[in-house]
Amino acid sequence: MGEFDLIARYFKRPVTRATLGVGDDCALLNPAPGTQLAISSDMLVQGRHFFADVDPRTLGHKSLAVNLSDLAACGAKPLAFTLALALPEVNEPWLAAFADGLFALADAHGCELIGGDTTAGPLNICITIFGEVPVVQGQSKALLRSGARAGDDLYISGTVGDARLALDALLGKISLPDDMLRAARLRLEMPTPRVALGLALRGLATSAIDISDGLLGDLGHVLQASSVGATVHTEDAITSIASYAYKTRAGGLFSLNLSHDQWLALALAGGDDYELLFTAPADRRADVDAAALASQTPVRRIGKIDTQAGLRLLNAQGESVPNTFTSFDHFA
Amino acid sequence: MGEFDLIARYFKRPVTRATLGVGDDCALLNPAPGTQLAISSDMLVQGRHFFADVDPRTLGHKSLAVNLSDLAACGAKPLAFTLALALPEVNEPWLAAFADGLFALADAHGCELIGGDTTAGPLNICITIFGEVPVVQGQSKALLRSGARAGDDLYISGTVGDARLALDALLGKISLPDDMLRAARLRLEMPTPRVALGLALRGLATSAIDISDGLLGDLGHVLQASSVGATVHTEDAITSIASYAYKTRAGGLFSLNLSHDQWLALALAGGDDYELLFTAPADRRADVDAAALASQTPVRRIGKIDTQAGLRLLNAQGESVPNTFTSFDHFA
Repeated sequence: MGEFDLIARYFKRPVTRATLGVGDDCALLNPAPGTQLAISSDMLVQGRHFFADVDPRTLGHKSLAVNLSDLAACGAKPLAFTLALALPEVNEPWLAAFADGLFALADAHGCELIGGDTTAGPLNICITIFGEVPVVQGQSKALLRSGARAGDDLYISGTVGDARLALDALLGKISLPDDMLRAARLRLEMPTPRVALGLALRGLATSAIDISDGLLGDLGHVLQASSVGATVHTEDAITSIASYAYKTRAGGLFSLNLSHDQWLALALAGGDDYELLFTAPADRRADVDAAALASQTPVRRIGKIDTQAGLRLLNAQGESVPNTFTSFDHFA
Repeated sequence: MGEFDLIARYFKRPVTRATLGVGDDCALLNPAPGTQLAISSDMLVQGRHFFADVDPRTLGHKSLAVNLSDLAACGAKPLAFTLALALPEVNEPWLAAFADGLFALADAHGCELIGGDTTAGPLNICITIFGEVPVVQGQSKALLRSGARAGDDLYISGTVGDARLALDALLGKISLPDDMLRAARLRLEMPTPRVALGLALRGLATSAIDISDGLLGDLGHVLQASSVGATVHTEDAITSIASYAYKTRAGGLFSLNLSHDQWLALALAGGDDYELLFTAPADRRADVDAAALASQTPVRRIGKIDTQAGLRLLNAQGESVPNTFTSFDHFA
């Protein structure tokens, strides 16, 4: 099977939002009047972002999910994406499953494939995604990292820590019971991009970012961009599915043998969570609850934004917790 | 040096066309009223698209050039691009030179870097580029592959064949004198995207494509998209810089030892040329000449579009030439 047959068989689909899709030198996109385009690129590399033997269906899902997550963090509505794919070989069952996982998530978000590239090479998946953000009276409604203000509440969506827990288990660093590994692995391999929440937070959240490198590391980007500091109640961040089991059945029922500090590290620096971290004015808690409900996305208040620069961590007793949590860096 | 320092040092620059550039979850782009966006992605893989020891400055140039070439083929004006980069290691001199080559070409075209991704992994460069195309009275001015009509003239810009000649020399398949290798290698490593010509051909060319996989293979895409056939005068396509030397100093002065068929194959199926192949009505030859002059880009008429399906090749004597030229396919 040649390059063009491969594209035609697995990746060429009619487009409805774009004027022109796969099959010419460029795709053509007409942004709606009164909107701007939000654009993001993510590259996934075998051995770095996924294991060689990962189920291609979940890989197709995750490749798009991490990009949708960037749109979510900007409050952008998904529109379209391009896919560039380096493949070591043409493996048709693999391609069919990858395309299945990719398009299932794309269709769920009304996000269409409009172009891209295929080449031979070490497995590498590069997606660039396009979303729409309203511009009202010259004012963009995009959620940025730079809008956090002192006094704002600090929230996270969903659960953080399970993806890293699954990774550590798959790397053989810890042992997990089968059912817990399955649950955690779903969070690692099929993250849920919080697109609906991002849209519901437009005009409400003062800043947002998606948690990809680790909660505290990504919070650091918001603090830097907004020139503020923050206080985080560390116990409130321990939200992983596994940690709930640990909390309710404390005593090592699952033989996890993780210390409290290790649970904390999973939550605060685990990474690969693709939850939203966002800030909102303290007098709008009811609106945040309503946005969470409307988007069917749990959110949790974990701290607040301070005038004082830097990051302060407090435990349940209000005591200071040293920040020894380092987030993920591809080159560190 | 960590991931964020790397981005800040080499790839973060102020933006003027985009509303928001590198440094948030998404970039924000406001297309001008009355325009649509042309979008294209290309992925370059070490060992496939370039040698491991290639000068990083030329690699930075070529990575963007192949994308600009796609905009040129659509008659789109360059606007912005994203860059996703997988690097085996952080090599600062390499990165500085790569960024130099990249931004020199970007600046020459007023095309700004607005976002992307960096990760560790086998060297892989994925650029997605954005250009502007006017929409006049609901009608897109984009040049497409599908507009060729019977009776149209068929043209190529510049020269084809040298890139493949250089590749064959670098692979040790043929031997070239130093000065000829230098000239041919420039065509391989620093192709000239024909952006100015693409813009000048708006409203004039009936179809266009850029020659990346080989002249006849790319022509095949136009014929298929336009449901037409074509006749090509093969001798007129032999335009490579090296072939001019061969033609004028025939007799093997450069010890190239290439047969006439090999010269033909370089021109018709060499690939990596990034010239434009386009069609225009036969009664507009003067306008095509004017467009070539205005864009300072040589163009050459090499055939015509026929009603009859399929591709016919004729030599200088008007005799049929069998089409044994296969263009590049990453998976063939």
